[in-house]
Amino acid sequence: MVESLTSSYKRLMDKVHDIIVLQSATAVVHWDMETMMPPKAVQLRSQQLAMLSRITHKMVTDSEIGKLIEAIMKHPDYEKLTEVQKRNVYLIKKEYDEQTKLPEKLVAELAKQRAITTNVWKRAKAAKDYSIFKPELEKLVELSKEAAEILMKVKETKTPYDALLDIYEPKMTSETVAKVFEELRVGLVSLLKKCETAPKQPDVSILKRKVPIEMQKKIAKEIARFIKYDIESKEAGGRIDETEHPFTTGYYDDVRITTHYYEDNFTSSIFSVLHEGGHAMYEQNLRREWIFQPVGTACSSGFHESQSRFVENIVGRSREFWVYFLPKLKEITGNILADVELDRFVHAVNQVKPSKIRIEADEVTYCLHIIIRFNLERNLFADKISVAELPQVWNQSYNEYLGVKIENDSEGVMQDTHWASGLYGYFPTYALGNIYSGQILEAMEKDLPDWKKRLAAGNFQDIKQWLIKNVHSYGNLYDPADLIRKITGKELTVKPYLDYLTQKYSMLYGF
Amino acid sequence: MVESLTSSYKRLMDKVHDIIVLQSATAVVHWDMETMMPPKAVQLRSQQLAMLSRITHKMVTDSEIGKLIEAIMKHPDYEKLTEVQKRNVYLIKKEYDEQTKLPEKLVAELAKQRAITTNVWKRAKAAKDYSIFKPELEKLVELSKEAAEILMKVKETKTPYDALLDIYEPKMTSETVAKVFEELRVGLVSLLKKCETAPKQPDVSILKRKVPIEMQKKIAKEIARFIKYDIESKEAGGRIDETEHPFTTGYYDDVRITTHYYEDNFTSSIFSVLHEGGHAMYEQNLRREWIFQPVGTACSSGFHESQSRFVENIVGRSREFWVYFLPKLKEITGNILADVELDRFVHAVNQVKPSKIRIEADEVTYCLHIIIRFNLERNLFADKISVAELPQVWNQSYNEYLGVKIENDSEGVMQDTHWASGLYGYFPTYALGNIYSGQILEAMEKDLPDWKKRLAAGNFQDIKQWLIKNVHSYGNLYDPADLIRKITGKELTVKPYLDYLTQKYSMLYGF
Repeated sequence: MVESLTSSYKRLMDKVHDIIVLQSATAVVHWDMETMMPPKAVQLRSQQLAMLSRITHKMVTDSEIGKLIEAIMKHPDYEKLTEVQKRNVYLIKKEYDEQTKLPEKLVAELAKQRAITTNVWKRAKAAKDYSIFKPELEKLVELSKEAAEILMKVKETKTPYDALLDIYEPKMTSETVAKVFEELRVGLVSLLKKCETAPKQPDVSILKRKVPIEMQKKIAKEIARFIKYDIESKEAGGRIDETEHPFTTGYYDDVRITTHYYEDNFTSSIFSVLHEGGHAMYEQNLRREWIFQPVGTACSSGFHESQSRFVENIVGRSREFWVYFLPKLKEITGNILADVELDRFVHAVNQVKPSKIRIEADEVTYCLHIIIRFNLERNLFADKISVAELPQVWNQSYNEYLGVKIENDSEGVMQDTHWASGLYGYFPTYALGNIYSGQILEAMEKDLPDWKKRLAAGNFQDIKQWLIKNVHSYGNLYDPADLIRKITGKELTVKPYLDYLTQKYSMLYGF
Repeated sequence: MVESLTSSYKRLMDKVHDIIVLQSATAVVHWDMETMMPPKAVQLRSQQLAMLSRITHKMVTDSEIGKLIEAIMKHPDYEKLTEVQKRNVYLIKKEYDEQTKLPEKLVAELAKQRAITTNVWKRAKAAKDYSIFKPELEKLVELSKEAAEILMKVKETKTPYDALLDIYEPKMTSETVAKVFEELRVGLVSLLKKCETAPKQPDVSILKRKVPIEMQKKIAKEIARFIKYDIESKEAGGRIDETEHPFTTGYYDDVRITTHYYEDNFTSSIFSVLHEGGHAMYEQNLRREWIFQPVGTACSSGFHESQSRFVENIVGRSREFWVYFLPKLKEITGNILADVELDRFVHAVNQVKPSKIRIEADEVTYCLHIIIRFNLERNLFADKISVAELPQVWNQSYNEYLGVKIENDSEGVMQDTHWASGLYGYFPTYALGNIYSGQILEAMEKDLPDWKKRLAAGNFQDIKQWLIKNVHSYGNLYDPADLIRKITGKELTVKPYLDYLTQKYSMLYGF
């Protein structure tokens, strides 16, 4: 007798429920490592995380899941499933195929090599010596290529690199990325030149004033209050802690962000709280009824980044935000910023200046850093360049795109952890996020034409509700290309983002 | 072909390694719940912990473990195993038998009823209404009796209650406990009367002086430094956080304690840091080579308590400790305690006063609280009293043993969480810990006759090293009765503990 569709579906979802619960517990263990763990526990913790990951992998690749998926998809009543149910089955199948098609041995080798390469990267970066890093990176890239080639067949992508890209940005192709990135590059380079040659230049000395860490913590709390990221009440579902590099982690009712306070760079933490707050907002506002289901997750890495950049830049670096927030900032910091004038401050936090370091980049140059990385990754996985050639191509690109001269590889090709951690195909999602954010802004302006006025009055709630309704609440029901169409009625396009930048920076720099 | 003994043993230990790693990760998730978790995550967290406990249970009861144990124990070369290897196999078998002999259904019902009863207990305690608590406690006790009866057969104990006691204090019998507790009761009651009628009484008003929480945090750090519980260095393996009720959790390189700071009761945190520090010391100083093995754990709950009480009371409430530490305390608290005189202070922190609440009890009355609970538990599981009768018998016992009148059940039978959480047979280990600490002190005095002099000079290190060598480093190689014999050359005996108390309190109270 054929098992009923409902019963198979329920059994499948029960299995997935357990996996998701375990993953959310693992996130807590990971967060603890970054924030609270006594340093002596490093080794023990890596064993704990490896153990949890092995258990999860076993659960994800349980052949029972494969059988249930098949039973459901071949069931005569399959079409009677709802859209959400079908999407859940699709997402489970995608994950199952990805995880089961890779040989166990390769998965284990990759995990081991990732750990080794990350460790060596830290040492090499400290020593400013790429030659220490190179041999381990080569091994990791080779293993990753092997995996990518297998995934390419499973996913039927054009290239191995596309199969990696698809992990973070489902169905996105490197062809599309290359096309939009070229358009983006042209726009950004032109904008950068205009800013650099504009007569009106910002005075950034204000931003170097020393603000005591305790005050900065109060500012962070005030920002959390502003974006309604609850870290204080008896119903709070978040918290802010300190780490070297800010991040967001968690699930539904427990989504935590971190920041870093620099005494002589107080806006760093302001913008990182806004950025991570944007990520957290997304996770906290997925549909309640989708908890423990694959649809109850964010759409993609790119979409996640669209939300963080929206809150950090489109909101947080707007003049209107500071109309409301500068007085609060002055209140908290006493006489430190008492003489700061609104427009000078807004220009300062929007200074455009080519730099060597991606995470310090402004809105105009940021995506150029990403485009460089994308080109390198793509060529690396197409065997057009080698790991040995990376530094040279990197430095050349930085000179060409941004006009900066890289002095050593620690401020060059070794600045980010991504490649050392085996994340290939991830970088482009940062720029895609910015592009999405421009399209989302355009759509929002139709519904909330006076959003800036509301923002200046301290009302972020309406913007947030719009994002929840039009972005967050869709969860993972659609692939990115479908979701951006759903939200904006249009395909992926660079224009709104470039328009937003052009309008904003022409006002600021007066060109 | 018979698998080689070495190979079976290795496979068994690999399985146990994984279980222990997972348990240590679960401890982090649990710690987070008590200290860091945003309140909204309560439900999610209970699912995460239930999930981890289900996975652990599955791993512990894996039939492969049963087969390996049998293969090893019946192997012709079994006797060639080392003492440590045999002990590991023994401990694994004990756990495996306990876990597999209980029907899955009963285990699940128990887990569920524990959660329900704990929740109802909170409500009932807040409402001071035992009638709310009673029906759920009855269900939990019934289920626990069912489990105890099964365990009794597995462990071949005399009574079901003895089977529970054996979980926390292996091989200890209620007959032995009853015998030593009676001797202890007689001694304590007599000592209590002497203290109460002594002409010299302490002035405890000093202890009520308000000490700001920030200062108390500094004091806690100073105590950690004193007992060499590292929470500060780059090699730190511990940390101190705040919770309602102090506790210790962790494994080897990551052992964390918590405390509670009361502005108007600054010594509360001092003694809880010393107490939990004693627990932490034990966990941190188990033999390095036994990590991830069953022998690499503490001997028993009673032995754990012996270490915490040793550091809290025998060290921390000694005159000599305060010779060294009072000046430090004065240094940190400025003029708040400037006028405090050593002997008055030492008498104050050793005030003997019968109270209703166990966790507030002094050294002389503390074990009387425990003896009352032991008698009640034992009678409950022997069907000599019912859950309905508990409050009445409780109140009567408190009047009889301590001369205090219980006004309501929240300060009476409902004060502790243990019974609501399904912990039966646990309470006696608190008093056993005190008894062990007395015997351990007697043994230490032979090797370190001048320990008090060293302590007064600020040297705790020698005491700690003695404890590491003579207690901690044995891990779980012996059952408690064997370990106390190993350490002291004697059987379990109350005399040294009573001698220690008598000597100390006759000095303090001048009788």
